[in-house]
Amino acid sequence: MSVTSAQGFGAAGVAAGLKTSGDRDVALVVNHGPLDAAAGVFTTNRVKAAPVLWSEQVLKSGRLTAVVLNSGGANACTGPEGFQDTHATAEHVAERLGCGAADVAVCSTGVIGDRLNMPALLAGVDAATAATAATAPTAATAPTAATAPTAATATTTETNSDGGDDAARAIMTTDTHPKTVTISNDGWVVGGMAKGAGMLAPALATMLCVLTTDAVADADALDTALRAATSTTFDRIDSDGCMSTNDTVLLLASGASGISPTQPELNQAVEKACADLARQLIGDAEGASKEVAITITGAASEQEAVTVARSISRNNLLMCALFGNDPYWGRVLAAIGTTDATFDPDRVDVSFNGVKVCVNGTRNPDAEAADITPRHLSVEVDLHAGDKTATVHTNDLTLAYVHENSAYTS
Amino acid sequence: MSVTSAQGFGAAGVAAGLKTSGDRDVALVVNHGPLDAAAGVFTTNRVKAAPVLWSEQVLKSGRLTAVVLNSGGANACTGPEGFQDTHATAEHVAERLGCGAADVAVCSTGVIGDRLNMPALLAGVDAATAATAATAPTAATAPTAATAPTAATATTTETNSDGGDDAARAIMTTDTHPKTVTISNDGWVVGGMAKGAGMLAPALATMLCVLTTDAVADADALDTALRAATSTTFDRIDSDGCMSTNDTVLLLASGASGISPTQPELNQAVEKACADLARQLIGDAEGASKEVAITITGAASEQEAVTVARSISRNNLLMCALFGNDPYWGRVLAAIGTTDATFDPDRVDVSFNGVKVCVNGTRNPDAEAADITPRHLSVEVDLHAGDKTATVHTNDLTLAYVHENSAYTS
Repeated sequence: MSVTSAQGFGAAGVAAGLKTSGDRDVALVVNHGPLDAAAGVFTTNRVKAAPVLWSEQVLKSGRLTAVVLNSGGANACTGPEGFQDTHATAEHVAERLGCGAADVAVCSTGVIGDRLNMPALLAGVDAATAATAATAPTAATAPTAATAPTAATATTTETNSDGGDDAARAIMTTDTHPKTVTISNDGWVVGGMAKGAGMLAPALATMLCVLTTDAVADADALDTALRAATSTTFDRIDSDGCMSTNDTVLLLASGASGISPTQPELNQAVEKACADLARQLIGDAEGASKEVAITITGAASEQEAVTVARSISRNNLLMCALFGNDPYWGRVLAAIGTTDATFDPDRVDVSFNGVKVCVNGTRNPDAEAADITPRHLSVEVDLHAGDKTATVHTNDLTLAYVHENSAYTS
Repeated sequence: MSVTSAQGFGAAGVAAGLKTSGDRDVALVVNHGPLDAAAGVFTTNRVKAAPVLWSEQVLKSGRLTAVVLNSGGANACTGPEGFQDTHATAEHVAERLGCGAADVAVCSTGVIGDRLNMPALLAGVDAATAATAATAPTAATAPTAATAPTAATATTTETNSDGGDDAARAIMTTDTHPKTVTISNDGWVVGGMAKGAGMLAPALATMLCVLTTDAVADADALDTALRAATSTTFDRIDSDGCMSTNDTVLLLASGASGISPTQPELNQAVEKACADLARQLIGDAEGASKEVAITITGAASEQEAVTVARSISRNNLLMCALFGNDPYWGRVLAAIGTTDATFDPDRVDVSFNGVKVCVNGTRNPDAEAADITPRHLSVEVDLHAGDKTATVHTNDLTLAYVHENSAYTS
């Protein structure tokens, strides 16, 4: 299922040898139409990977026929040559699918700074396009399937009936399992897949995500729905405060259901899909032992609520304490105090898992009752400065996180 | 030596039982004059500990007779009662020294959220004032020394000839050794002590610091020198990005040398003292295995250079990589990209320990030559956007840091 849950989409995930593990590492999502509307949201990091620069450009048309994704290399900080590699990848996909390169978005994920193994990647594209050709309504939409890959370079060309699952596996890096979603509506569907296990931070989380829908919707409607959804979901997960060079979230509409949802209906379905995937990302963050929901209430504005929640989520000392099952609310206060949000230090309340540990900025005598040993932990802060609220999802800072990230490239 | 290096100062450090270890935990620094000019710089955290609120207030006069400091409790997030505890501590010191409570600054460090054991603390004050009475030029300046402590509550009243060293030990928390400094000038001296081993972050680092000088200087001159010095030293160490509720840096002048340095001379000596102590703090940061100097050159402004350096210093992923001896320059670029500083991603150069690993935003073929195994590591970034420069000092993110901070209060 996943990106193939919606009618009109084909997908594949193959092993092209980009990952030293031999696992699947090239994914393809093809929109068979009849529509080809699309929207995208990208990292706000000013150091953008070549595929981000490329895909931002092609998305300006509001149309996409396909998305090609690879793990095993981020193609970031690779200069003009890296951009040419991205361009060549899109060209190769376009040639196989019989569309233009400007109809193909490219996403990459993996280590920053290395060029991609282009012969392996292009052979992977051949295998993936061959696999998706079978999903096309008519053979005419996949004219070059017959020219596809040699087994030598694409070692896992066999795909099961669900190319969507293969695709979700092919974009994994340190993820321990694939992340997919299907939101069923009244006759139309939003499906999707995502990867992202470390470096989860705002605007966006570090991640690749492709969403598909068979609803009838134009690019503007998709863009509206996608921006609204990411701002309250992916933008509010913050595992380790680090922002990626490659974040990309794409939404493609085939219109194959023939159903035209209203904008609010579309918004709601896309947000549901994003929220589900965001939760899966935090649930599988690198080395995490806890999933922490930080909810701010009583804020003067939603933005201030997000600012306060994010400051708490990024406090290394608190995140170590939570790993150690230590409900050290003093560090919550210290983190709030670094923000410019409206609050009076003598009126702040803090709860862990529903047990009030701090009242009016000081220790609640009942604080000892707080049990933060479960994996799912809620930290609730009432600023008593208004009626706005927001939740940011994060993880604890663990020995496993440090271990995993101290040995990532080497 | 330390705070007693300058003429006219007495100091003591005693064990009052605030620390469960039984180590020294109450320090006193007394200015015997003839001058009593003073200046202070405090945390910018909006959640301020009671002693910070108190000391900010008393410093408005530009005068201090004494500073009393305790470890074993931060007295932060303790409400009006905690403030009364601070006030009572100052009153007690004043009574023993024969000055006013408003002439006494108070500093506390330790766990946030707990009230101090006041009987123990006040007995410690008695022991400390008794010890410093011997350092006074005439007995008249320490009128109540004879009334001092019972051995029962202040278990380590014996002080060696150097009360400065005892004081430096008494303010330690997770520090592994005391930090002191003496800057000798032409007939006058700046001495000092500091503590701070975790939660080192900007404006200020988490720390307590008392500097003393026997120079003749008024409060304005001290304030000017102290603000200039902290802005380029303590404000530029950032071990873990967390900001404390208790940061305090004080500078007291006795005038006992009879020498009046010029403002630039005073500035230079105070900056030297602060820089030396700042280096010691980073050298002893919690769990760190590396001391990392991040130097930005070619910045459009000094402020942008600091912003970029700080963003790099706070990147958990990079700091894990450095712990793992992995010169992953891609994470440096990703961190730079999160700032709004002036730079072109295709013109940034990065070096580790003098070996260029990234040229024009891409990998330098010679990058493999970089060796980051030594404890002292320099990360140099040239933004090629101007001629301004700044250095921020930080530490790697280690298993020991997580271990230490996951078991701090419990």
